[in-house]
Amino acid sequence: MVYITRKEQFSASHRLFNPQWNDAKNYEVFGKCANPNGHGHNYEIEVTVAGVPPKETGMVMDLKRLSDIINEHIIERVDHKHLNHDVDFLQGVIPTAENIAVAFWKILSRAITEGKLYSIRLYESDNNVVEYRGE
Amino acid sequence: MVYITRKEQFSASHRLFNPQWNDAKNYEVFGKCANPNGHGHNYEIEVTVAGVPPKETGMVMDLKRLSDIINEHIIERVDHKHLNHDVDFLQGVIPTAENIAVAFWKILSRAITEGKLYSIRLYESDNNVVEYRGE
Amino acid sequence: MVYITRKEQFSASHRLFNPQWNDAKNYEVFGKCANPNGHGHNYEIEVTVAGVPPKETGMVMDLKRLSDIINEHIIERVDHKHLNHDVDFLQGVIPTAENIAVAFWKILSRAITEGKLYSIRLYESDNNVVEYRGE
Amino acid sequence: MVYITRKEQFSASHRLFNPQWNDAKNYEVFGKCANPNGHGHNYEIEVTVAGVPPKETGMVMDLKRLSDIINEHIIERVDHKHLNHDVDFLQGVIPTAENIAVAFWKILSRAITEGKLYSIRLYESDNNVVEYRGE
Amino acid sequence: MVYITRKEQFSASHRLFNPQWNDAKNYEVFGKCANPNGHGHNYEIEVTVAGVPPKETGMVMDLKRLSDIINEHIIERVDHKHLNHDVDFLQGVIPTAENIAVAFWKILSRAITEGKLYSIRLYESDNNVVEYRGE
Amino acid sequence: MVYITRKEQFSASHRLFNPQWNDAKNYEVFGKCANPNGHGHNYEIEVTVAGVPPKETGMVMDLKRLSDIINEHIIERVDHKHLNHDVDFLQGVIPTAENIAVAFWKILSRAITEGKLYSIRLYESDNNVVEYRGE
Repeated sequence: MVYITRKEQFSASHRLFNPQWNDAKNYEVFGKCANPNGHGHNYEIEVTVAGVPPKETGMVMDLKRLSDIINEHIIERVDHKHLNHDVDFLQGVIPTAENIAVAFWKILSRAITEGKLYSIRLYESDNNVVEYRGE
Repeated sequence: MVYITRKEQFSASHRLFNPQWNDAKNYEVFGKCANPNGHGHNYEIEVTVAGVPPKETGMVMDLKRLSDIINEHIIERVDHKHLNHDVDFLQGVIPTAENIAVAFWKILSRAITEGKLYSIRLYESDNNVVEYRGE
Repeated sequence: MVYITRKEQFSASHRLFNPQWNDAKNYEVFGKCANPNGHGHNYEIEVTVAGVPPKETGMVMDLKRLSDIINEHIIERVDHKHLNHDVDFLQGVIPTAENIAVAFWKILSRAITEGKLYSIRLYESDNNVVEYRGE
Repeated sequence: MVYITRKEQFSASHRLFNPQWNDAKNYEVFGKCANPNGHGHNYEIEVTVAGVPPKETGMVMDLKRLSDIINEHIIERVDHKHLNHDVDFLQGVIPTAENIAVAFWKILSRAITEGKLYSIRLYESDNNVVEYRGE
Repeated sequence: MVYITRKEQFSASHRLFNPQWNDAKNYEVFGKCANPNGHGHNYEIEVTVAGVPPKETGMVMDLKRLSDIINEHIIERVDHKHLNHDVDFLQGVIPTAENIAVAFWKILSRAITEGKLYSIRLYESDNNVVEYRGE
Repeated sequence: MVYITRKEQFSASHRLFNPQWNDAKNYEVFGKCANPNGHGHNYEIEVTVAGVPPKETGMVMDLKRLSDIINEHIIERVDHKHLNHDVDFLQGVIPTAENIAVAFWKILSRAITEGKLYSIRLYESDNNVVEYRGE
């Protein structure tokens, strides 16, 4: 069993805000992430796939194809977008890094058919990272 | 003469859009950076100050004080903000990295009184950087 | 279950030295890390907390609060300190990266009350890392 | 149980090519990695060893000795080499990152006698990583 | 005047070898870089263009277009290639980082028509960099 | 004219303290950098040499030899040392990054005889850098 990881980037804006709460409660929970006009990040996503490399290719799956899948299914739908307003598969959830990672998992676990999706790590910044393993 | 540099970070959103042009022209010039709801970045700012370190301190200026000045005059006004809507000193300019760097220079060249402001570098992403030296 | 990680930095000095051994034995085991006046590092600490994000916040815990906890309980007690002499909770242990990570675990596993502390990674340099998971 | 990791670098060239296939099939599977004269990378290898630090040293094993072992058994045999032509222990396998990592594991799991080899991560580039844990 | 920089990557192999010298002399001058089958790097290229941003765009030139120019004129011709054998514009020169940077300058100084090419930095590895400014 | 840069690392401790001042004045000027037992950093040094590559080598100077010179003249004298106590060429100066860079310049400008020393950059941390160009 070998684990292969591909890293991709996208730039997006978001706002952390629970519409069932008033502004004061939102600021108490989310701090300046609740600012009305939102803010943004250069997100980095690391997608890890586990599998046994067949002898004739020596690859769990082609990392270039993994890159293509991530770009087609994720990056093109979120890059240079506002995650609260422009992304259909994030409607109805607060776009925290945790929720974004789980939403990406749902999409990629279906799109990746060689090997098995093992982990999605999402860097919101150099200092803030979340990981979801489908558990 | 020694050059000292302090790096700080902030997260913000922006939209590249010239209100004197129609949407088609804006998309032609700015591409997906013209998307209406904006997008965002983890910006990094590197501020370089040139000076001669006095013998009794050995420092051009205290890097901690330089950090404090950058935070008070810049970071607190742009971090977790939408650069088009929330930042007074960017009103009326298109918030490209070039224009942001020049705006920061105007503020910091007044705020820094030890040594002389030499350069401002602004990273919009790992791959995109601009530098302004007041020339 | 989602894993969230916050990274913080501190600068400290230390010396690897077992007082029950003579100098020759210490140099044999610890090499130049046994130099009497010590040396130092920019340490990086990555603290990972595991939990299930509640629907109303979408966060395992607020990464800003995790940062505050790490700063209050760890960084303020070790930053710009000599780990052998100035840090009460490291008295009586050789301040190897392994021992520092275990000592941080003891403190943070009590201080973190949302989610569950999962891992502490300590970078002594870009090339040297240790991880402790409380096992 | 503590996990310690040492990172080392080497520069090498390789070509992905299955000699049992014709050129068209090789280009279909490996893309430009099948170019006849090969290409190259700055590889980074992260070797993780798990163990219980003895009280008198506080170290799973000396990270300097781990570095020496990696250099003697791996780096000296692959650095500034062509992995298809110059490296005996890679003869007969396609030098994908997956296969290289498995080959390194076979060598290092024997060479490391303190603690237990836990993981080998191999970075082919910043965006492409593989990991093997001997499973 | 503002300086904008775009970073791109490519992976290639090369061999340092002066055909007018015998093998012993080549090894004396170039060390293991003279190994007959070559070795490789993940090269990073930073291209800096200087100019005055026009008021209607706020950009010296579109960084996306700069990226496209670098990719079309440089990356597509060197990525996944052997620099000694596969690259027409490097024929007859020893492909040291210095010579590669000068060759890139000749191409890009013609291809870039907005602003003025100011600098080319080429990273052969994290620790080895060269810069050419056309002087 | 081409500029080549080699990066090296060392780990050391230091204390910022002017013996002609009392403790209160030292804390006022240097903050926690004045703590009596010192603290430490993983320093990074970038040495830039300018020159014209001769046609028969294509190199300003061999980067491996530049590395050897830096290691012999600098790294071996400061690595794993306390800069205030253990380093002869820093006696009598406050070991700020500025003063360390100037001291390194004096040594390296004599030791480097191919090309001409152009710049020394010293990273005290990712966020704090100084540069000296002998001006």
